[in-house]
Amino acid sequence: MELQLALDLVNIPEAKEVVKEVEDYIDIVEIGTPIIKIEGLKAVKEIKEAFPNLQVLADLKTMDAAAYEVQKASEANADIVTILGVAEDESIKGAVEEARKNGKKILVDLIAVKDIETRAKELDEFGVDYICVHTGYDMQAVGKNSFDDLKTIKRVVKNAKTAVAGGIKLDTLPEVIKAQPDLVIVGGGIAGQEDKKGTAAQMQQMIQQG
Amino acid sequence: MELQLALDLVNIPEAKEVVKEVEDYIDIVEIGTPIIKIEGLKAVKEIKEAFPNLQVLADLKTMDAAAYEVQKASEANADIVTILGVAEDESIKGAVEEARKNGKKILVDLIAVKDIETRAKELDEFGVDYICVHTGYDMQAVGKNSFDDLKTIKRVVKNAKTAVAGGIKLDTLPEVIKAQPDLVIVGGGIAGQEDKKGTAAQMQQMIQQG
Repeated sequence: MELQLALDLVNIPEAKEVVKEVEDYIDIVEIGTPIIKIEGLKAVKEIKEAFPNLQVLADLKTMDAAAYEVQKASEANADIVTILGVAEDESIKGAVEEARKNGKKILVDLIAVKDIETRAKELDEFGVDYICVHTGYDMQAVGKNSFDDLKTIKRVVKNAKTAVAGGIKLDTLPEVIKAQPDLVIVGGGIAGQEDKKGTAAQMQQMIQQG
Repeated sequence: MELQLALDLVNIPEAKEVVKEVEDYIDIVEIGTPIIKIEGLKAVKEIKEAFPNLQVLADLKTMDAAAYEVQKASEANADIVTILGVAEDESIKGAVEEARKNGKKILVDLIAVKDIETRAKELDEFGVDYICVHTGYDMQAVGKNSFDDLKTIKRVVKNAKTAVAGGIKLDTLPEVIKAQPDLVIVGGGIAGQEDKKGTAAQMQQMIQQG
């Protein structure tokens, strides 16, 4: 099980500060969609340059022109690129093909997918690397989480790694670990805490024991 | 009927060059999703500064954290911000509310929406400003277009303006005009032509007569 730190509501210098504090305890650092839209892909490039030992995920949430966007993220030295599960099959396939060409990985974000089970099976057949259940900010705000969805994809996904994101904190991590995802994605649960380093260390320990 | 120039596969200086050529013939200039992801929202800000008389649309294709993304696009002086029709209702409502606060407009992109008719009716009730049928690059590549979808939304949308995007060129424009959308979005049909100025002028004339 791996731990990914998601950075969303910060600028590039703030992102570097946070990663510096917790780099020993995480496997992947995610440059979130808002950062990329505000600052561009140079955010990905700069974080990868500063932390070459970490994998960097570019949360493009690609919806169209998928091969082109994956190519550009690859040029910015992303290791993993995200595409939306609600995107057309043609876009998903284009993203996978372009990622293979560049030695990169594709994570599909199931945010807002209505039939998680059916879509996860389809995506698994397209050869994506990660399938991620995700309760976004706007649905967390009305009290949703992704823990049941995680159990659903764990049941049907045969080849891809499974991931879970959305509002995971220290106190909900044990429930997440019980479902045995391959990747746990934490944002504010680390970045929004007073003691980021201690929290990340504790999470890593729980994940390694889980 | 208004004409929007969509810029996708160019950098900021190239975008300025193209807009300069055709600014007299278009109403709105769209900074496309790939430009924003590559260069950040400064692309929107710079184009609005260079062409204050044009409306600028930031094609964020927002999927989550909608109020935050609309706020950031507003700060970059976008006049119109896009959100995905496949996004959760909570995200759409958050985008509309934030846009109202800032005196901005929301265009919902129906790309990859399966039941166009039902979703367009729902979106219309949420108070969005534009509802846009859109065949993306990856579906144009397999021969699709949005002309039938345009007729569908024209039938059911009562309050929002209707828009159409995806592969529209000089020779398909008459068919589009016949369906009477409020906004016609053209990308490569202008930006990919040898004579951009002449093409835009001809399109504007057809639209004004249509």
